[in-house]
Amino acid sequence: MTLQEIGKRAKDVSRRLSILGQTEKNQGLLEVAESLVAGQEEILSANEQDMERARENGMSQGMLDRLKLTPARIESMAEGLRQVAALDDPVGEVISMKTRPNGLLIGQKRVPLGVIGIIYEARPNVTADAFGLCFKSGNAVILKGGSDAISSNVAIVKRIQEGLERAGLPEDAVQLIEDTSRSTTREFMKLNEYVDVLIPRGGAGLIKTVVENSTIPVIETGTGNCHIYIDEGADLSMALNIIENAKTQRISVCNACESLVVHQSVAKEFLPQLQQRLNPYQVEIRGDERAVEIVPEFVPAAPEDWGKEYLDYILSCRIVDSFEEAVEHINRYSTGHSEAIITRDYERAQRFLNEIDSAAVYVNASTRFTDGFEFGFGAEIGISTQKLHARGPMGLKELTTTKYIIYGNGQVRP
Amino acid sequence: MTLQEIGKRAKDVSRRLSILGQTEKNQGLLEVAESLVAGQEEILSANEQDMERARENGMSQGMLDRLKLTPARIESMAEGLRQVAALDDPVGEVISMKTRPNGLLIGQKRVPLGVIGIIYEARPNVTADAFGLCFKSGNAVILKGGSDAISSNVAIVKRIQEGLERAGLPEDAVQLIEDTSRSTTREFMKLNEYVDVLIPRGGAGLIKTVVENSTIPVIETGTGNCHIYIDEGADLSMALNIIENAKTQRISVCNACESLVVHQSVAKEFLPQLQQRLNPYQVEIRGDERAVEIVPEFVPAAPEDWGKEYLDYILSCRIVDSFEEAVEHINRYSTGHSEAIITRDYERAQRFLNEIDSAAVYVNASTRFTDGFEFGFGAEIGISTQKLHARGPMGLKELTTTKYIIYGNGQVRP
Repeated sequence: MTLQEIGKRAKDVSRRLSILGQTEKNQGLLEVAESLVAGQEEILSANEQDMERARENGMSQGMLDRLKLTPARIESMAEGLRQVAALDDPVGEVISMKTRPNGLLIGQKRVPLGVIGIIYEARPNVTADAFGLCFKSGNAVILKGGSDAISSNVAIVKRIQEGLERAGLPEDAVQLIEDTSRSTTREFMKLNEYVDVLIPRGGAGLIKTVVENSTIPVIETGTGNCHIYIDEGADLSMALNIIENAKTQRISVCNACESLVVHQSVAKEFLPQLQQRLNPYQVEIRGDERAVEIVPEFVPAAPEDWGKEYLDYILSCRIVDSFEEAVEHINRYSTGHSEAIITRDYERAQRFLNEIDSAAVYVNASTRFTDGFEFGFGAEIGISTQKLHARGPMGLKELTTTKYIIYGNGQVRP
Repeated sequence: MTLQEIGKRAKDVSRRLSILGQTEKNQGLLEVAESLVAGQEEILSANEQDMERARENGMSQGMLDRLKLTPARIESMAEGLRQVAALDDPVGEVISMKTRPNGLLIGQKRVPLGVIGIIYEARPNVTADAFGLCFKSGNAVILKGGSDAISSNVAIVKRIQEGLERAGLPEDAVQLIEDTSRSTTREFMKLNEYVDVLIPRGGAGLIKTVVENSTIPVIETGTGNCHIYIDEGADLSMALNIIENAKTQRISVCNACESLVVHQSVAKEFLPQLQQRLNPYQVEIRGDERAVEIVPEFVPAAPEDWGKEYLDYILSCRIVDSFEEAVEHINRYSTGHSEAIITRDYERAQRFLNEIDSAAVYVNASTRFTDGFEFGFGAEIGISTQKLHARGPMGLKELTTTKYIIYGNGQVRP
C-alpha cells in the first residue's frame, strides 16, 4: 500500500472511530488483548527473526534487551490494553457551555484529534501501547516503528487487527508503515492531508529529525536535563533522600536528576554528605571550582556539563551565591522538563514555582514523579517538553482536541 | 540587530513578563494607547511614505485601503488596547489541583507561552493588536510585518515602546524585524531556540509558506470553505435569512458561507426562493446538474467549485439525497472552519454536531458567528483551523500554556 492510501484509509476510518461509544471501544481493547495473548507464538517467532538480525548486526546488549519479547512481556502489553479499557473516555466531555446575549448556546466539546502518526524506535511494546491510547481516545493511528523491530511490529499489528475484527471494529484503526526506509519516513512527515498530529517517541536524534522535517504539527516528547536546587537553610537529609532517588532509582529516564545547584551557605556541610550518600552507586559528580575545593573527589566540570542529559551515573554540581542565580542557571540550562527546589522558605518555594520555566516544577519532592501514572492519568503516551497543546505527561485527554458546538434558533449576525 | 539578538532579547524579557502582575500590565497597555494617540502625526507621516511607495508600485485600491491609516484608525488601535486592558488576565489560573495518595499536591497552572512570533501582511493595525494580546497574556512578541507597511510598523512599534518605557516596563516586550527580506523571514521561522510559537496571519499563501518552512510550532489560522446544509423539512424562511447573512453580510471573511448543500426533498421549493433572495446582491450561484435544472439562472459548477473559498459574491450549491451524503460531502470539502445545518429534526441536529469535523458546528445559526468577540472572548488573535493547542477563535487564553506545580514534603518514588 502507498503512504497516500494508508493516509486515506486512516482519515476515512477516523470518522467512524470518532463517534464510537465507550462500550464498543472497551470491548475492542479487551478483544485485542485476548488476540495478543492467543497469538503469542506467532509474535515470539517474528521477534526471534528480529533478534537474530540484530545480533548479526552487532546490536548492543542493552538494545537487544529492549527489542526482546517474552510471554511475560506480551502478557504485559495485553494487561496495558485492559488497563486503558478501564480508564474514563475523555471524548464527548463538554468542557464549558454558555448562553450568549443573542440566545446562542455555545459549548466546547472534547473530540478526538483524528489521525495520529507515531514514529518510534526499537521497542516493540510501543506498538500495542500507542494503539491502545489512540484507539481509546477515538483516533486512528499510523505507526512507523524502527527497522530493527519490523517483524515483531508486523506480527503485533496483525494480531491487533484480528482482535478488532472479532469485535466488529474497523481494522484500519491501526496501520503500520512496513517500509522503514528513510525516504518513506520523510514522506510520512509531510502527509498533512491525512495526518493531524505526529508524535515522535525515541532519542534526541529522532525527535530532532522529526521537528526539522515534519510539516505536520508535532508534539515533542523531550529530553530532560532535570535540576535540583538545594536552597539556603534546606533540610539536608531530605535533600539527600530526594537526590539519591532522583539520580539513582532509574538512570536512563528523562525525569532523572542530572544536575544539582547548591546554595553556597550550605555547600560546605552538604557536599561531603552527598559524596558519601552517592558513593555506593559510584556516581561521578562533576563540580564547579568551588565544589571541587570542598570535595576533592569531585571531577572538575567542563562548561558543556551544565547542558548535558547524562542518562548515566553522573551528576553535575554547581554552587551559586543566591536564589536568583540558581533560577537563572536553571532556566538557562534546563530542557524545560522537571526541576525541584529543596527549601524550608515559603517565599522562595513560591518564587521557584513561578519563575522556573519547566513542564513540572517541584517543591521538596523527587523529579522522578513526572509521569502519567504518578500524576494519576492512568496512562501515558509521552512527556511533552513543548508548550503548545500539551506540556508535561500526556494521557488520554492530551490525545483529544475540542470543537465548538453551537445551538441556535435562527440567529444571524447584525 | 541580528535575528539571534532579537530572539535572545525576547527570551530574556519573557521571564520578566511572565511574572508581571495584572495591574502593571494594564497600566502598560493604557500608557501605550496614550502613546499611540499622542504620536499620531509621526505614525501618519510614516504611513504616508508606505502609501506613496505602494501607489508607485501599483497596489490595488482594496489593498491601499487596508494599508492606509487615519486619525480614526489610530484611535481605534488605541481603543483596542484599552479593551484588552479591561479583560481578565488568564495567567496564574490554577485549572485543577489534586492531592495524590502519597501526599503530593499536583496542580496545573496557566502560564504564558513565552515568546510568540507573528508573521503578517499589509495591515498595520495588526501591529498594535498583536502586541496588546501577547503582552496581556504575559508573552514577549516578535513581529514580522509585510514590506509594504514597514515605515508604519516601525513608527507604531516605536510609539508602543515609548509607552512601555513610560510605564516602567521593558520595551523589548515588543520587537519588530525591520529586515523584511524573504531570507530573513525564513531564518525567523527556524529560530526554535528563542521562539515558542509562530502565528501567521494573512492569506493562504503566507500560511502555507509558514507551515512548510517553520521548525517552530505553528498555530495555523486558516481559510474557511464554510457550508450550510438545508435539511429535509427545514424551516425555509430561517434558511433564507441565515444564508443571506452568512453569504452577504461580509464576503471577504473566513466565516462567510461559500457552499450550500440542499436535501433533494426541499430543493424544488427552496432554490427558486434562494435565487430571488440573493438576486439583489448579484450572488452567482454555481449549482450541480440537478440544481441548474431547477433554476436555469444558476451557473453549472465545475468539480473545483466544491473546494473553493470564494471570498466573493459566489456560492456553490449541491443537492444530496440523504443526510449522510451531506455529511460526507461537507467533511470531504470543508476546510474544517465553520459549518451549519438548518433543520427541525432533533436526531439529525445532534448527529450533525457530532459527525461534522470542523472547529465550529452550528444548528440553525449563521456561520458568521465564529469570532472571538461573538463567542464572548473579548478579543481575538485569529481563528485556528488546526487541531493542536487551539481550535476555533483564539483569545487570550489560547496564548497561554500550562505548567504543573507540585507541592511535596520529601516524597521520593518507590
